[in-house]
Parts: sequence; C-alpha cells; structure tokens
Amino acid sequence: MATNQEEVSLLGVVGSPFVCRVQIALKLKGIQYKFFEENLVNKSELLLKYNPVHKKVPVFVHNEKPIAESLVIVEYIDETWKNNPILPSDPYQRALARFWSKFIDDKIGGAVWKSVFTVDEKEREKNVEESLEALQFLESEIKGKKFFGGEEFGMVDIAAIFIAFWVPMVQEIAGLELFTSEKFPKLYNWSQEFMSHPVVKEVLPPRDPLFAFFKARYESLLADSK
Amino acid sequence: MATNQEEVSLLGVVGSPFVCRVQIALKLKGIQYKFFEENLVNKSELLLKYNPVHKKVPVFVHNEKPIAESLVIVEYIDETWKNNPILPSDPYQRALARFWSKFIDDKIGGAVWKSVFTVDEKEREKNVEESLEALQFLESEIKGKKFFGGEEFGMVDIAAIFIAFWVPMVQEIAGLELFTSEKFPKLYNWSQEFMSHPVVKEVLPPRDPLFAFFKARYESLLADSK
Repeated sequence: MATNQEEVSLLGVVGSPFVCRVQIALKLKGIQYKFFEENLVNKSELLLKYNPVHKKVPVFVHNEKPIAESLVIVEYIDETWKNNPILPSDPYQRALARFWSKFIDDKIGGAVWKSVFTVDEKEREKNVEESLEALQFLESEIKGKKFFGGEEFGMVDIAAIFIAFWVPMVQEIAGLELFTSEKFPKLYNWSQEFMSHPVVKEVLPPRDPLFAFFKARYESLLADSK
Repeated sequence: MATNQEEVSLLGVVGSPFVCRVQIALKLKGIQYKFFEENLVNKSELLLKYNPVHKKVPVFVHNEKPIAESLVIVEYIDETWKNNPILPSDPYQRALARFWSKFIDDKIGGAVWKSVFTVDEKEREKNVEESLEALQFLESEIKGKKFFGGEEFGMVDIAAIFIAFWVPMVQEIAGLELFTSEKFPKLYNWSQEFMSHPVVKEVLPPRDPLFAFFKARYESLLADSK
C-alpha cells in the first residue's frame, strides 16, 4: 500500500509513447515523482542497473523497487494507488482491457512504425495494410463510447495514446494516410476527446520538436537508401 | 464470482503450448470444462465468432463470454477462481510475474521457433544467439528457487511450459542445442520439477505424435528449400 514516505521515480525520455503511458497513469492518480531524463545513446548506470534485461525506458522505481514494461507499470500503479481506477473491477472487463492493450502493442505499434520508417515499398504496403486492418478493429471497439474505458478513460485509452498523438505525426511526415477522420471517424473523435482531457493534455510532449526529430530521422533514412 | 452453474469451455488444439497454459491453470484450480478441439485448417464458426480479431486458439469461454490470449485467460481464471493462486498477492511481485511472462512471449517463443523452423543460415544463427541470451536471463531469475513462483508454481512457470516441454522437442528435431542441462542447469532442474508436478503432468500432450508432427514439418521445410 502507498504510504506517506514514497519515493517514486520514472526513468524516461520526453517523446516516448511508452513513457507517456506511465506519465498519464501517474498524473491521473495524482502521484508526485522525480523524472530522470535518459540519454539513449549513452544510457545511465541507473537504467542499466534497473532494467538489465531490456535496457529500455520507461523504468518505474517505487521505493527502490524497479519495474519495466509500460503496461506492467500501469497495472502496478493501479494496484498500488487505488483512487481513479485504471482497470475495471469486473474480471471479465479487466480481461478485455488487457486483451485490447496487448492488441495495440502487438498489431499497431510495429505496423505503423514500419509503414513510416521503411524504405522497401513492398514492406511498406504490407505494413500499411496491417495498420489499417488493426485500426478498423479499434474503430469497431470504441463504438459509441466516449473512451475505451467508458465514461472515464482507462488502460486501453492509455495504451492507445500512441494512436492519438504519435500516429498523426509520423504519417504526416511520410505522406501516408493511416489514421484519419475520414477512415476512422469514431476513433478520431475518441483521439480528440482523449488528448483534450486535462490529465492527458498536461503530459503530452510538445509536438514541434518531436515532429522535427521524426522528420530528420525519416529524411536520413531516405537519404541512406539512395 | 464463480457460481455453481458454470459453463466453462476451451477452444484449443492438443499440442499447442498456449492452450496448455490455460489447461494447467484450469487443472490447478480444479475447474471442469468442455474442450473443443479445433481444426486450424478449417476453423469452426465458434472460433471465428469468439475470436474474430486473431482467429486463434486458445479461446476461453465462461458463461458465453469469450476471452482470447493465453496469459490474459490465465489472469482471468486466477481472478475468478480464488483457490490455489497463480499470481502473487503483492503488487510488486505481481508486476515481476507479468514482466517475466511477457519476456518469455516476446524474447523466447519467437526466437526458438525461428532457430528451428528457418532455412536461412544467418537467420538461424541470429535467432539461436537471441534464444541463448534470453534463456540465460531465466537461468539467473530461477536462482535457487523451486519454481519461478517460489514453493508453488505460478504465472511465470505456466508461461514457461513452452521451454520445459516444447523446446527440448523441437531442438532435437533440428539438431540444435539451445536448452540443455549443461548450458542451463538451474533452468533444466526447474523444467524437470515442473513437468513432474501432478497438475502439469496430467495436461501435457503425448510427446510422440507431437514430435512426429514437428519432425514432418521440419523435413518438409528442408525439402522445400532445396
């Protein structure tokens, strides 16, 4: 259980959708924490010590106990701080929340990324097709709901921040149309609703530098392939 | 909560490590269920209806409510039937159990499979290396414990049934040495302990037909590549 003498830290980088998930959860729960900005080109001793397996961010550290993997962290936060629940209390609804969160990681993250940051035309086409197919499942799943979690946002919404904020940015850079209001009107409405939620709005990274970062990466990829 | 009028079904195939995970959980909890054997070449209406997203087994159906994804199902079973707990009660230990279960799925399943069922030599070497590296992390993690879960087996053990039972079989077929008692003595001891546990022993599929099935698949792959 949470006590008054909490030591809560997050090792991350600004601009990572996985780190952002944890930040949304922490903000929703109203938890104060120290943010340690990592340099992924020169990883800190702390990161290597706390996540020797993957050596990746985010790493969440609660009273010196480290946890890696964004969705594992989000569940831990939800189980440790009980206010503003992130997962539903009903076991079946919890299972569905876990299913869709995993779906987003397995079927959308990689496919969208490879749609954008791929030189090979065939590879891109395949990934574009997979991205669209996966997004269609989410379009059906959001139905007429305000959030995936219902009236309040939850685990699936947090997992899907990648779709709301990152996908529009990287598709613009590559001149692709993956996630648009025409193709996925309900999911698009959800994304607007979610990003204007006070909790989410406050933790989203600034768009312009991130856009410039991804654009440079995309252009360097194109240049290398010529 | 569980009631007396339970309808519990499992759509699966004998010989799938993912289906076996669910069977171990059900056996541990002492839950009676109907098993529907799927033909994956000609999938049933029921499977397509209950898992329209992935169209894969296992699908667990509890009182007409379907759940897919083996680890999601195992957590659901643990939350619904409280006897013989599968996940620890402490949130931090739960997070670690989820972390290692995910690690097994992300880092071992695919790498071992591609080590065996790959024609390309470079691709095989890369995957063998990744498999060994990942197994080493589990060798360190099991330490001197009887099970990953401690004195009783839990979520990580269930996730790792693939390593105990399937890996020795497919590596033998391909003439590879991935998971051996010399390379990973502690993990090997764990695997023997786990497979001789009465609950696990009773749900493991018969080895010989499965070995023949994988061998035929391996030989057909080799033949196709000539």
